[in-house]
Amino acid sequence: MERIDYRPLPAAPGSNLGIITLTTDFGTSDVYVASLKGVILSITPRAQLVDITHDIPPQDIFAGRLAVDDARKYFPRGTVHLAVIDPGVGTKRLPIIVEADGQFFVGPDNGLFGFALKARDRKFWKIRTEAYPRRSATFEGRDVLAPTAAQLAHGTDPHDLGRPIFTIRDFKMPRPKKSPGRIRGQVIAVDRFGNVVTNITRPQVGLQQARVFVEGQIVGPVQRTYADAKEGGLLALWNSQERLEVAVREGSAARVLNVRRGAGVIVRLGREEEEE
Amino acid sequence: MERIDYRPLPAAPGSNLGIITLTTDFGTSDVYVASLKGVILSITPRAQLVDITHDIPPQDIFAGRLAVDDARKYFPRGTVHLAVIDPGVGTKRLPIIVEADGQFFVGPDNGLFGFALKARDRKFWKIRTEAYPRRSATFEGRDVLAPTAAQLAHGTDPHDLGRPIFTIRDFKMPRPKKSPGRIRGQVIAVDRFGNVVTNITRPQVGLQQARVFVEGQIVGPVQRTYADAKEGGLLALWNSQERLEVAVREGSAARVLNVRRGAGVIVRLGREEEEE
Amino acid sequence: MERIDYRPLPAAPGSNLGIITLTTDFGTSDVYVASLKGVILSITPRAQLVDITHDIPPQDIFAGRLAVDDARKYFPRGTVHLAVIDPGVGTKRLPIIVEADGQFFVGPDNGLFGFALKARDRKFWKIRTEAYPRRSATFEGRDVLAPTAAQLAHGTDPHDLGRPIFTIRDFKMPRPKKSPGRIRGQVIAVDRFGNVVTNITRPQVGLQQARVFVEGQIVGPVQRTYADAKEGGLLALWNSQERLEVAVREGSAARVLNVRRGAGVIVRLGREEEEE
Repeated sequence: MERIDYRPLPAAPGSNLGIITLTTDFGTSDVYVASLKGVILSITPRAQLVDITHDIPPQDIFAGRLAVDDARKYFPRGTVHLAVIDPGVGTKRLPIIVEADGQFFVGPDNGLFGFALKARDRKFWKIRTEAYPRRSATFEGRDVLAPTAAQLAHGTDPHDLGRPIFTIRDFKMPRPKKSPGRIRGQVIAVDRFGNVVTNITRPQVGLQQARVFVEGQIVGPVQRTYADAKEGGLLALWNSQERLEVAVREGSAARVLNVRRGAGVIVRLGREEEEE
Repeated sequence: MERIDYRPLPAAPGSNLGIITLTTDFGTSDVYVASLKGVILSITPRAQLVDITHDIPPQDIFAGRLAVDDARKYFPRGTVHLAVIDPGVGTKRLPIIVEADGQFFVGPDNGLFGFALKARDRKFWKIRTEAYPRRSATFEGRDVLAPTAAQLAHGTDPHDLGRPIFTIRDFKMPRPKKSPGRIRGQVIAVDRFGNVVTNITRPQVGLQQARVFVEGQIVGPVQRTYADAKEGGLLALWNSQERLEVAVREGSAARVLNVRRGAGVIVRLGREEEEE
Repeated sequence: MERIDYRPLPAAPGSNLGIITLTTDFGTSDVYVASLKGVILSITPRAQLVDITHDIPPQDIFAGRLAVDDARKYFPRGTVHLAVIDPGVGTKRLPIIVEADGQFFVGPDNGLFGFALKARDRKFWKIRTEAYPRRSATFEGRDVLAPTAAQLAHGTDPHDLGRPIFTIRDFKMPRPKKSPGRIRGQVIAVDRFGNVVTNITRPQVGLQQARVFVEGQIVGPVQRTYADAKEGGLLALWNSQERLEVAVREGSAARVLNVRRGAGVIVRLGREEEEE
C-alpha cells in the first residue's frame, strides 16, 4: 500500500485548541472527506474536527462562502476553517491561508474567503506547495490544504507555511439597495425547512415598521418568532443570524412562495397608509 | 465580526468524560448544527461530540424522543444528551435540564424527555436563561441549550445552571394493548432499510409462540435473524432494541407492506389452530 | 433502563492515537451509528472517531470494501477501521480482526477486507465473542465488533481479543484485462458529482498515449485536470486515487454517458492512426 507517512507533530503545550472545521461540496457518500481527515490526523492526531457541512452544492462558491461566514462567528479564536469548494482545481489559482479576526481560513483563492477583506485584522499567505510530499492535480484539498490546516491547528506559524501576499480574490455578494421608504434585497439561501433567507439584515431596518414582500407577494410585518404565525401561514422574522427570513410555520416558505436563490425581496418601511 | 467570546472553562481533573450527543431536526446542509458545536467548543474545547442524528423529520418530537431514548442506553454515565426539536421555540415553554439514570438531557420541555419520568433516579431543572449573553428569539438551541450542555459536560453542577422543578411535560406514546391471545400494537418507525419497527417488545411476548400480522397482512412467526428469511420474503424478528420488527431480506418491508408510522400490528399468541 | 455498563479502560500512556474509523450501510437517520459510537466511548472515552461513510448502499460489500480500501491510505499506523456491511449477520460467518500494513480492520468475514490478503504484513484473528456481555442476533456490529475496535484502539493486544486464523474470505474484484494495444476495464463506482470511476489505474497505462471509450462512446485522451475540459464536455483523467475517471466539467458524466457500475471501459493505447 502506498501511503504517505506524515510525521505527527509533537504535542504543543499551552493554549492551542486544535479545532479544525471542514466545509466542502464533497457530500458524505464518498471517501473524500475522510481522506482530508485522515491526512489531518496523521499530522495532529488530537485535532478537534467539526463538519460545517459537506452538502454545499457542487462548485457553488457563493453558498460555501455564506456557510463559512455564518459558522465562523460561533467558533473560538484560533479555530482553523478548512474549506474546499474548488471549481478551478488544477488551474493557476492559488492555495491560500487567511487570518481574520483571530481565526485561520485555508482554501483556494477563488473568493470563498472574500468576507475577510472587511476584517479589522487580516493577513494573507500563498501556501508553499513545494513542501508537500504528494500533489495530485485533482485533489489539492487533500494534498496541500489539509496538511496546511493541520499544521496551523497545531500552532505552526503561518509564515512557515506560506509567503505573504497583499490581497485575496473577492466576488460581489448581492447587497440590498436602500431608497426612501424601501429596501430591495434578494433571497440568498433556502434552508432545510424551506425557510427563505435574505440579504436584508436587522441593523438596516432598525426600529422602523416594516412590511415584507417576496416576488410581489405580501408576507406582512416582521414578527418576533415562528410561533407568531398561524400554522401554514407566511411569516417574516429576523433569524438567528439577524437576517430577514420568511418562514411558514410547520411548512416550507420556499414552496408556498415558489422562490429560490436570487428572488427579489422588498421591505417597505414606515406606516401602513403608504401601502400600494 | 460580532462574536460572543465565550470563556473556555479551565480543564477539570478527574473522571469527567465530556461526552455530548446531539439530536436535532436541523439536517446537515445548513450551518445550524455547526453553530451548536462551535458554542460548545468555545466553552469546553475538548468535548467529545457525537451526532445521534440530525435527520429527525422537522418538528417531529415523537421521532426525536424515540431516537434519544434508543441511543442513551449505549452511552456511559455522565454523558450529556443535547436535543433540539423545538416547534415551540420563542414561546413560553421552558428550556430544561433532566438528570436520569446518571446521564443529563438538555432541551425544550415539550415531551422530548418524557421517558425520564420513569427513571429510578430523576431530577429536573428549569435553565436560568438570564446567565447567557445572547438570546435570539429563534435559536434558543444555540444561545441557551448548547452552552448549558457544554457546562454540564465540563462538570458544572446543574444547580448552578438551573432552578429545580418538580416535573416535566410528557406526551402519550402509543402503548400496545394486550387481550387474551393477542397483542395489538403499531408501527412507530421505519428505518433506512425499510425495516418496520413496532412498539411491541420481547418481554411482552416472552416465550409464547407468536405470529405477526401488519395491517391485516400475515408476516409469520418471529424468527431469530434476518438470514432466516428467503431473499425478498417478509420476516418478523426481535431487533437489536428488543422491539418487534418486520423486515424483508435485502428489501424494504415498508414498501412490500405499504405501511408507515401508525399502521396497526397484531401478534397472535399460542398455537396455530387458533388461526382465523 | 437496561444499560450494559462497559468498564472504561485506564488511559494508556505513550504512542497510542486511538483513531477509529467507521464505515457502514446504516445511513445517518437512525441511531445505529450512534450506538456503535456510544459503545466505543464507553470503553475508550477519548477515541478519535472518524466517519468514512455510512451511505454504503445497503449490504453492498463491494462498495464497502472499495471505501475502506481507498480511505485507509490516508490514516496513520495504528488506526482501527471498523466496517459493518453485513448481509450475513446472525449466520455462521465469523467476526474478525485483520492487521495489515500497520493498521487494524474489524468486521464480518465476508470479503470486506479481501484487500488485506495482498498486504506485506498481515495477520488474522477470529474474535472471541464469548467475552462480550450482550450478543443480539441482529446487531453484532454493536455488541461484538464495536467493543473489539475500542479495545484495539486502546492498545489491547489482538491476541487477547481473538484466536489466530490462517486466512480470510475474499471475493473477486473485477480486474482490467490487457491485450495488445488496449485495456478493458469497467466502471466500479459513480461518485456524488457523477464522476465515473473505473478499475483501470495509472501504472497500467504508464506513459503511453491513451484514448478512453465508455460503453462504446468516445471520451478522448487522458487529461491532467478537470479544468482541461470545456464546460459540459466529457473528460478522462487520473483521479486522486490514480484511477481512470471520466468526468463532465460542472456536470455529471454518469448521466451524460448513461452508465453505472459494471459498464465497460476501453483504453486504446498508442497513436491515433490505429483508431477504428
